[in-house]
Amino acid sequence: MAAAKRAPVLTPQAEDFPRWYQDVLNKAELADNGPVRGTMVIRPYGYGIWERMQAEMDKRIKLAEAENAYFPLFIPQSYLTRESEHVEGFSPELAVVTHGGGKELEEPLVVRPTSETVIGEFMAKWIQSYRDLPLLLNQWANVVRWELRPRVFLRTSEFLWQEGHTAHATREDAAAYAAKILQEVYADFMVNVLAIPLHLGIKPSYDRFAGATNTLACEAMMRDGKALQMGTSHELGQNFAKVFDILYLDGDSNQQHAWTTSWGTSTRMVGGLIMAHGDDNGLSIPPALAHIQAVVIVVRAGSDVDNAASKLMADIGDHGVKVRLDDRTGTALGRRITDWELKGVPVRIEVGPRELEKSEVTVVRRDTGDKQRVSVEGAPAAVAELMDQIQDDMLAAATEFRDTNTADAATIDEVLEAAANGFARVPWSVVAGQDAKAALVDKAVTVRCIQRADGTIPDNENEPDLVAYCARSY
Amino acid sequence: MAAAKRAPVLTPQAEDFPRWYQDVLNKAELADNGPVRGTMVIRPYGYGIWERMQAEMDKRIKLAEAENAYFPLFIPQSYLTRESEHVEGFSPELAVVTHGGGKELEEPLVVRPTSETVIGEFMAKWIQSYRDLPLLLNQWANVVRWELRPRVFLRTSEFLWQEGHTAHATREDAAAYAAKILQEVYADFMVNVLAIPLHLGIKPSYDRFAGATNTLACEAMMRDGKALQMGTSHELGQNFAKVFDILYLDGDSNQQHAWTTSWGTSTRMVGGLIMAHGDDNGLSIPPALAHIQAVVIVVRAGSDVDNAASKLMADIGDHGVKVRLDDRTGTALGRRITDWELKGVPVRIEVGPRELEKSEVTVVRRDTGDKQRVSVEGAPAAVAELMDQIQDDMLAAATEFRDTNTADAATIDEVLEAAANGFARVPWSVVAGQDAKAALVDKAVTVRCIQRADGTIPDNENEPDLVAYCARSY
Repeated sequence: MAAAKRAPVLTPQAEDFPRWYQDVLNKAELADNGPVRGTMVIRPYGYGIWERMQAEMDKRIKLAEAENAYFPLFIPQSYLTRESEHVEGFSPELAVVTHGGGKELEEPLVVRPTSETVIGEFMAKWIQSYRDLPLLLNQWANVVRWELRPRVFLRTSEFLWQEGHTAHATREDAAAYAAKILQEVYADFMVNVLAIPLHLGIKPSYDRFAGATNTLACEAMMRDGKALQMGTSHELGQNFAKVFDILYLDGDSNQQHAWTTSWGTSTRMVGGLIMAHGDDNGLSIPPALAHIQAVVIVVRAGSDVDNAASKLMADIGDHGVKVRLDDRTGTALGRRITDWELKGVPVRIEVGPRELEKSEVTVVRRDTGDKQRVSVEGAPAAVAELMDQIQDDMLAAATEFRDTNTADAATIDEVLEAAANGFARVPWSVVAGQDAKAALVDKAVTVRCIQRADGTIPDNENEPDLVAYCARSY
Repeated sequence: MAAAKRAPVLTPQAEDFPRWYQDVLNKAELADNGPVRGTMVIRPYGYGIWERMQAEMDKRIKLAEAENAYFPLFIPQSYLTRESEHVEGFSPELAVVTHGGGKELEEPLVVRPTSETVIGEFMAKWIQSYRDLPLLLNQWANVVRWELRPRVFLRTSEFLWQEGHTAHATREDAAAYAAKILQEVYADFMVNVLAIPLHLGIKPSYDRFAGATNTLACEAMMRDGKALQMGTSHELGQNFAKVFDILYLDGDSNQQHAWTTSWGTSTRMVGGLIMAHGDDNGLSIPPALAHIQAVVIVVRAGSDVDNAASKLMADIGDHGVKVRLDDRTGTALGRRITDWELKGVPVRIEVGPRELEKSEVTVVRRDTGDKQRVSVEGAPAAVAELMDQIQDDMLAAATEFRDTNTADAATIDEVLEAAANGFARVPWSVVAGQDAKAALVDKAVTVRCIQRADGTIPDNENEPDLVAYCARSY
């Protein structure tokens, strides 16, 4: 590895994974803790990653024909209490505004923990007949859920997310759309852009979103073997439609309740990206996501080197690669290389006087550490080709890591053994009961998702021959 | 005008401008009032306009080398009180969170009305030496300022905005950057994309942002002759740097306070767009902003017409125009035309069976109502050309309207007379005093901005021969 000779700037993963994570946040300048406990400040480099996630997700959300809108931050407390499971699920996490404009408010306002209730209220206004269905909405926003054990990006009292909310004429339409979002938006983005392999499935009925009749999830494995829930898509049945009077006239002029869904992904994905690909040298960002895909480093100052590096940068840019120039020769080369590795830029190109004499530069991959000498002429095309190669290799490496750390289990004991280091794959029937659940929870292990044996998503947890993935989780 | 024969769907502007505005919000499906007084729901069509504003602004902000970041929604109340003018300016507008996670909080939290204080705290951490300067940050976020007289998009208790915050080594650098943002980001966007002409200038010293040493503003005229402040850029001097200890080591290793700026534009611009270009038929969106630039309307169902319309839509799209197909022939043609006019789509193309027999379609401009018959073959190029033409014509029309409704004044009485219907242009010395200010305010007239006689931005209000624009305002 390129950086092996230098002193480690991060706590090694094997020594203390949570501390490694915290070190990466600081050293790669991704985020800081905010002044209010549980909040975070997303620094420009971290926000650049989130912006790219937003752009790629938003493109897919629009392809799924959902339209963006914006609903208010403040929700009357009475809205939350209308759906009983919903308020029960969120009550302990709420932030409450009691004063506004210098006065005590007549009704306290809740800072949205999620927007099902307020959006339900407006869906009821906007939907009259079956012609208004489906109504497909999405919102990019901040939400607040008070966190007692906050961790930046993974669990914060305020986070950024997208929340989709849709209304449909039938249960089948709603179920199909919730699955479409999980597969065509979330999984497509996470697998093909984030290069993170997923298990898709349903959550056990006891672990659904508050108010949902079915919760679908994408589960990924982090480098410490724990699971991270990367996104969820919920069928809400007619629960919210009944409480908020979301009614439509069907083709026979009968009034019907709509069937609604909601689905969300958040800045938690940034945490997932860090922990799915990061190593002891820092972040490693897949090229399809990176807002800086390559950096041309001037090894030592000198007009020949400067000119060659500038020209090379322009040529690499012309090949469709997002490239930066690092000509901060006042800072030591080793320090600069360490910084770009920390930030996970997929490829660096070192331009130095000695290699230039042979018309060559050094191209280094962040994911594998592989170095190669390349002719200056051939470098732009070589770097452009590496983008696809690295993207594929990162997904393959993450998939191999996950599968190597997954074991088939047939008993609770075997589940616990496998989940100590990774995922356990077990017949759902083995872990479905309350006793089994308790035995797992006792060791901080949970059922992450339930699939059919062929990996597809079941309609419900009562189908025969289902398989469950169990793991410790974030 | 195309719609002259149909019954008006909006209150005419001349009859009741505020009601016209409210009608446009409703009928064009731009926004609704939220459940909490003063908040708004931005509907998909309105949000589509805001997304385009964000995209165009963000591009320019990045060209000005500011980087996006995200700071927390909740600010400890003590932060606000540190800068005395700042807290005095915002105190009556604050929303306060007193309970979180089911408990009363030890220190109440303010929902950010703006982020100078929390960003100041982090600038102090991140800035060590002159090498870290300038630090150029921007944030896209929601903010809350309690409004007693809310009006959707113009004054809402929660609104969406961008707020830029920068730190510089010298007063000159800070002043130059504040002006650069006003001119190269705000004015460039508003004039060239929104097609809204502006007066740029400084605010009178008594009307600065809370804590600023200089406030620059862009002022536009609405169709009722009132002014709308479309954006502001503030020099904050060393006020926030002193309170938050934003210090840097200069080249001689002396510790210095940085000079900071802040600048913002918001969803208020959507209100400005509506009121600067709208007419009795609804919105009129300049092509450079529109997310739907043209609509191909199937006049009457029929396979020939449907096929011709679909092909035409594809061809228009191939000419780089964002185009939609309206084949909802189950809805009356007049109703559909009214809808597209309400939504302000710049060009509509009507495809009907009779014209198709002559291989022709009808192309109608939203801004002027001009109709022309065009050959099917020539239509895509004609529509594409119209985009630039309409953009130029809309800016010219708005500029002519503004200048026609601006009068030179030499006395307070003349200012009041001119401001009854538009802008008064008056020597600053005539309105600078406290008595003059009071006489104007008594008639709801204020100094909107102060310029040099040649239209450039003065360094301060004490320069000789300055000119003030005075008007009623939103």
